[in-house]
Amino acid sequence: MELRAATFAPCRIEPTGMYEITVEADFSSGHYLRNYKGKCENPHGHNYKVRVTLAGAVLDEAGLLLDFKLLKQVLKPVVDRIDHQMLNDLEPFTVLNPSAENIAKYFYDETNRHLEDATAGRVRVKDCTIWETDTTTATYYE
Amino acid sequence: MELRAATFAPCRIEPTGMYEITVEADFSSGHYLRNYKGKCENPHGHNYKVRVTLAGAVLDEAGLLLDFKLLKQVLKPVVDRIDHQMLNDLEPFTVLNPSAENIAKYFYDETNRHLEDATAGRVRVKDCTIWETDTTTATYYE
Amino acid sequence: MELRAATFAPCRIEPTGMYEITVEADFSSGHYLRNYKGKCENPHGHNYKVRVTLAGAVLDEAGLLLDFKLLKQVLKPVVDRIDHQMLNDLEPFTVLNPSAENIAKYFYDETNRHLEDATAGRVRVKDCTIWETDTTTATYYE
Amino acid sequence: MELRAATFAPCRIEPTGMYEITVEADFSSGHYLRNYKGKCENPHGHNYKVRVTLAGAVLDEAGLLLDFKLLKQVLKPVVDRIDHQMLNDLEPFTVLNPSAENIAKYFYDETNRHLEDATAGRVRVKDCTIWETDTTTATYYE
Amino acid sequence: MELRAATFAPCRIEPTGMYEITVEADFSSGHYLRNYKGKCENPHGHNYKVRVTLAGAVLDEAGLLLDFKLLKQVLKPVVDRIDHQMLNDLEPFTVLNPSAENIAKYFYDETNRHLEDATAGRVRVKDCTIWETDTTTATYYE
Amino acid sequence: MELRAATFAPCRIEPTGMYEITVEADFSSGHYLRNYKGKCENPHGHNYKVRVTLAGAVLDEAGLLLDFKLLKQVLKPVVDRIDHQMLNDLEPFTVLNPSAENIAKYFYDETNRHLEDATAGRVRVKDCTIWETDTTTATYYE
Repeated sequence: MELRAATFAPCRIEPTGMYEITVEADFSSGHYLRNYKGKCENPHGHNYKVRVTLAGAVLDEAGLLLDFKLLKQVLKPVVDRIDHQMLNDLEPFTVLNPSAENIAKYFYDETNRHLEDATAGRVRVKDCTIWETDTTTATYYE
Repeated sequence: MELRAATFAPCRIEPTGMYEITVEADFSSGHYLRNYKGKCENPHGHNYKVRVTLAGAVLDEAGLLLDFKLLKQVLKPVVDRIDHQMLNDLEPFTVLNPSAENIAKYFYDETNRHLEDATAGRVRVKDCTIWETDTTTATYYE
Repeated sequence: MELRAATFAPCRIEPTGMYEITVEADFSSGHYLRNYKGKCENPHGHNYKVRVTLAGAVLDEAGLLLDFKLLKQVLKPVVDRIDHQMLNDLEPFTVLNPSAENIAKYFYDETNRHLEDATAGRVRVKDCTIWETDTTTATYYE
Repeated sequence: MELRAATFAPCRIEPTGMYEITVEADFSSGHYLRNYKGKCENPHGHNYKVRVTLAGAVLDEAGLLLDFKLLKQVLKPVVDRIDHQMLNDLEPFTVLNPSAENIAKYFYDETNRHLEDATAGRVRVKDCTIWETDTTTATYYE
Repeated sequence: MELRAATFAPCRIEPTGMYEITVEADFSSGHYLRNYKGKCENPHGHNYKVRVTLAGAVLDEAGLLLDFKLLKQVLKPVVDRIDHQMLNDLEPFTVLNPSAENIAKYFYDETNRHLEDATAGRVRVKDCTIWETDTTTATYYE
Repeated sequence: MELRAATFAPCRIEPTGMYEITVEADFSSGHYLRNYKGKCENPHGHNYKVRVTLAGAVLDEAGLLLDFKLLKQVLKPVVDRIDHQMLNDLEPFTVLNPSAENIAKYFYDETNRHLEDATAGRVRVKDCTIWETDTTTATYYE
């Protein structure tokens, strides 16, 4: 996928405002926790959900912070690499525990690396959240 | 858990009507498919949801087909046995593939066995549905 | 609200098919169970959800079984009467226990009574389902 | 996409049981109703959800009624054709009103046509449901 | 609708704390994007969801930051104006693209204007979020 | 329940990052508002949902900010005390109105008190949110 830096016109209407956008993606993976006593030390799995939040003050000429479609395209290969896999068998989770916290940081780093160049600094990754179940989440941000 | 046959009064108001109740429970387990080519042959996992539906024509004296709490108590040990486990390591899934279809039948059989005696035939299991993801389900009934 | 019998043209395309439609509504009410031992005997409450299902073989000339808007209008006074009230203080729940099962039958009867005349038998109430919580439901049908 | 008739072994365990599976897909389209007075006569749109239910008595050798992935592949071109379009501009909705009822029948017919040959009669489409909003649905079946 | 400045007693218990409340509303509208290449340039539509978040340090004498009912009343005419319409035909979206980002700002501005006077500065709009689909959102704040 | 201060290793990888985790719990309770004119002055009830958010910069040696299980254990007695009760009959809501705002602060205070000692300051409660219905929330933080 190619992700060109979008052309944009300065937003004259509200220079002091901020915009955020989010997209979500799903993956179903196996995992287990090392250095842990309890039922999470058994190999099992989850339907994970990841939500990436971007922030920026200026919209492009179509009135978008970033096209949802482009952000989904950035997420897709990151998700596809770990979907229907045992996370503990994949870098960096062969060493780092595949906890929701560490998976959130993994998506933050991967998304950030792709978007920084592509958007020329106009848009930054604000945070990444992982749902391990419908009622438990972990978020990472810097 | 003890599940006594509930006392009940015949429902005088609508002898021709039928009632159904459902309860749901969740579990996060690992699985993989044998005799299958594709990404589901890798060990991975899901947040499964199970919904059990009971049916009957007559309510008990508290106006209940069956107390939701009792049905949850019937489901709990069935769920706890497979939660945070690799399903392929547990009977009957050491032989039978832990597909959503077969897990649905497993819950149907287990629930039915417990409820038949306890409710003296007043209530029957109508069906069991398994959500493997939010958008894919399998149901079993007889 | 007036609910006229809709005009309709016979559906020439599939005389053997069946259509169903559903609408949902919410209400937040208090309740407690009589003749019951357990935490449900205390006055407490729920965000209830009701779903009404209609069925029929023939669509009207706009391609509708019944306008969702009309079905919502039928439901609204039934819901408004019990929303933000203690159900046990209102007929028929002063005598009948306000269990999810009995509330489902209450909505079935009320909806049926309004629709029978209005649709000249073209549409019938198939069932009513009450969510007492997100994971517990009761359904009534005849 | 090719969809071969799956090989399968007769299910020896429960000859009297029935299985159903469902998958869901989403699309965001515009529509308006002809022969209708009210706000639905204006061009507007919805995030539609479609759920297809299949039924059959016999599982294949992997323990599946039909691979969720295959059913999703059958649905995808049907969804892609109408996603992000004005439904009234597309057959059969240039004549037939794009009501939820008619969209449900459209998916039933399209899915049925693809699956009948592919599964050699082992699996049939039971029904199709369209969510026009989170609280309004229409279902078609034969 | 009239929205009087609520009377309130200073909150003696936790002067350093902050409260936020949110309400949500739905609308189903058509839209398309100008200056854009892709499937979003076609007229289509969505079930939008808007969530407004208010913030303040002091509760009124009923223990409310603002009555949910009042905030819903503020939102209702803003929602009704654009529900079941083609957004591109309505100000300010005849010029400004009806992207989720711009719709979020529109609700922020409209809500803010109504609440500023009514609450005498005790409560401020923190942000507005628009769901264009279940998995894509845009937020605006100042 | 015992909640020991977790042992942990300093996180060498990203000293500037922050982690948050959330867990949710449900309870169904009755309530009514004093000093209030409107339908909320009647005893009624809700399916409440509470979400607690913790924040911290350093993960423990299992890669967790705090075990979801431990946070659920902290929440459980707080929830159990008020589940299936009339909130107005329980401290502090015999005096303080059981508004969503005040219930949010109640959970903030209770959770904070338990976690402060147990985590030796490594983890702090960031905020607590109460859903009174699916579309209305209140949040408290300091």
